[in-house]
Amino acid sequence: MTKSPFRIAIAGLGTVGASVVQILHTHADMITARAGRPIEIRAVNARTKTKDRGVDLSAYQWMDDPVQLGSLDAVDCVVELMGGSDGPAYDLAKSALQSGKHLVTANKAMLAHHGLALAKLAEDNNVHIAYEAAVAGGIPAIKSLREGYAGNQIIKLRGILNGTCNYILSVMRETGRAFDDVLKEAQDKGYAEADPGFDIDGIDAAHKLCLLTALAFGIEPSLDTLDISGITPIGSEDIAYASELGYKIKLLGIASQDKDGDIIQKVEPCLVPLSSPISAVEDSFNAVEVIGDFVDQGLWIGRGAGGGPTASAVIADLIDLARGRAAPLFGISAYDLKPHIKGDKGQHVQAFYLHLRVYDQPGVIADIASILKTHSVSVESLIQRGRDPDQPVSVVMTTHDVARHKIESALKEIASLPSMVDAPSLLPIEI
Amino acid sequence: MTKSPFRIAIAGLGTVGASVVQILHTHADMITARAGRPIEIRAVNARTKTKDRGVDLSAYQWMDDPVQLGSLDAVDCVVELMGGSDGPAYDLAKSALQSGKHLVTANKAMLAHHGLALAKLAEDNNVHIAYEAAVAGGIPAIKSLREGYAGNQIIKLRGILNGTCNYILSVMRETGRAFDDVLKEAQDKGYAEADPGFDIDGIDAAHKLCLLTALAFGIEPSLDTLDISGITPIGSEDIAYASELGYKIKLLGIASQDKDGDIIQKVEPCLVPLSSPISAVEDSFNAVEVIGDFVDQGLWIGRGAGGGPTASAVIADLIDLARGRAAPLFGISAYDLKPHIKGDKGQHVQAFYLHLRVYDQPGVIADIASILKTHSVSVESLIQRGRDPDQPVSVVMTTHDVARHKIESALKEIASLPSMVDAPSLLPIEI
Repeated sequence: MTKSPFRIAIAGLGTVGASVVQILHTHADMITARAGRPIEIRAVNARTKTKDRGVDLSAYQWMDDPVQLGSLDAVDCVVELMGGSDGPAYDLAKSALQSGKHLVTANKAMLAHHGLALAKLAEDNNVHIAYEAAVAGGIPAIKSLREGYAGNQIIKLRGILNGTCNYILSVMRETGRAFDDVLKEAQDKGYAEADPGFDIDGIDAAHKLCLLTALAFGIEPSLDTLDISGITPIGSEDIAYASELGYKIKLLGIASQDKDGDIIQKVEPCLVPLSSPISAVEDSFNAVEVIGDFVDQGLWIGRGAGGGPTASAVIADLIDLARGRAAPLFGISAYDLKPHIKGDKGQHVQAFYLHLRVYDQPGVIADIASILKTHSVSVESLIQRGRDPDQPVSVVMTTHDVARHKIESALKEIASLPSMVDAPSLLPIEI
Repeated sequence: MTKSPFRIAIAGLGTVGASVVQILHTHADMITARAGRPIEIRAVNARTKTKDRGVDLSAYQWMDDPVQLGSLDAVDCVVELMGGSDGPAYDLAKSALQSGKHLVTANKAMLAHHGLALAKLAEDNNVHIAYEAAVAGGIPAIKSLREGYAGNQIIKLRGILNGTCNYILSVMRETGRAFDDVLKEAQDKGYAEADPGFDIDGIDAAHKLCLLTALAFGIEPSLDTLDISGITPIGSEDIAYASELGYKIKLLGIASQDKDGDIIQKVEPCLVPLSSPISAVEDSFNAVEVIGDFVDQGLWIGRGAGGGPTASAVIADLIDLARGRAAPLFGISAYDLKPHIKGDKGQHVQAFYLHLRVYDQPGVIADIASILKTHSVSVESLIQRGRDPDQPVSVVMTTHDVARHKIESALKEIASLPSMVDAPSLLPIEI
């Protein structure tokens, strides 16, 4: 067995970067035993050299320009932890691969936008890209899907891919508090960014889903074909109604194939049954659930973010590369990936949760029921309370299975009824 | 990239073996893309040649003697699916490794008994043993723990490792039916063996735990130091009381280190809170939960048995080996594993569930309470119903956290009270 060290350079020393250094220091002997050789830091880069990061960096070459890490001589692998889909991160990634170095990255945005180009560049240069930290850091989701489930044609995958959203929805449910209030608390605690749009609008989850989809189905990654809805429309009353009906609301990223084999990808708040394991995934935990044709259903739960869990994933990638364990970025050669063809979400049949706010006037329910019937939407249960003539009241329904385009057509018609207070809300029920 | 085929021989063509052949036939192109080369069957063996297994075996060399598969010339890897800790399975494993062939096996009993010797033999011959199918087949548990969590010192692991037991406990809880009745049904359906002892007495779970423990803590596997209790003492009333108290009963395999760093391994029925994700793991599903020092807590759920899920794990191992992805059996060199030192389970502090059957006589509760107090056992909740003078009644308690040796001493004393109908039962509460 070779005992030559596996030499790395790290760009980005925020929470994750500092934790990577900390693990390499704390567990040096264990990591050497597991990797079969030492993993040694040779060079580092960050925006500020003087900041105290709680780890001793004095033994490593300091580089002011991150992109220069890509062309250092005595380095086998570059660890990119700066973030950002373009700019220095992407320049460094290209430079490292072109210089024949492996790349470990936590950068989901960069891979979602440029994954195909980078995968080809890696193959052309006979090196590898590892990115376990980019998707649900504390879950070995990339490895489990790409290697553990490699004997299966994947039927469907879904996941709780954003810890901030899951935290907000969990606290809203537990406390009955409103979205804005819980978001502000999450920001104060550092769980949510000052500009939370990336998380709560579903963009971050979409980046991760896009990578999982490409890997699962052997197709080119495609953000453009991904339908995204965030959690801002979710009211505390929706969460309460869902509980009453036996569900929780979770922001899920879901990928499946339609009957023609085309790909449906979406990030959307959904109702999941209280009895399902995925509904027990609370707070900032992430989850990835995959159905394969032979293995059946699997669910993997873990921390999705934070220095320790994300750095743990980076170290796992480094040990893999040091041992010579690797795979193409999307599981098969980037040159063999099939083109991504967007499927028809409207044809998908499932049950739905409907929340209508109406002025309590005679005949309202009859009007709604009649429109639903016309569009073949069959109601399973209905909740209406607090009758107060001419005042707004909520009407909440769950439906039997129906094609999405049918219920969407019905809702369009219902929205135009004079008794509607505002636009109805529609959430799929994911069993 | 090499395009030479990865050539395999399969010993054992039961449900799992036939499924392995089926997946290789069904997904040949996909597997070639994922492995980077074709995986080709060259020879097969089973007890009966003429049996119809639903797959076409005519293209492969038939061998009557499984052990001879180990020394075939044109084979890179032997797949052992016969089972049994010794005999032909072990002979074949040794023969294959000595002949410089990789070994893929689903044989937990063989690895639990001979894992250390086989790991050394593999290293001496520069080949690898892959055994994802041996532990919770449908969960990539070996891979996730060994590779995905490789940056962590493992603090604790626990798992639902036997699908038959989980199925029986799930059905007992859902239906209120008795153990014997549900076991018989499971046998009729083929979920449980005619001789169910291996499953319900916890032996099968112990084999799997023993392998996970060695991998997690970098120590030699040891069955002898593993405390095993099965599920036969669990009554339907225990399950009902647990539900009432907010818990389910699960047979868990648990491994942890005591304060001296020594290893505590046990298979034992435990109470888990209804709100925990692991409590939602029902029927024949398996689960493995691991806590690492940086990654925090992870939980992986999937099918633990059956042809498809187990064969899926075998194929994953084959693709790994064909790609050149491998690791030492227990994560680090077998020559570097630390000796296994049994820890002191008695010092472990946690809450407990107690079920006492007593004759309903004046002063019984006072006697019990007094003994518990003497041993510093503090009661959290108590259920006693159906008072009927001098008739047997159940007294059920949960305790606050207490060292196990203290509550065991208290129970020994309580057992000798004249008012006791039979021996008290004690189950740990695993939060």
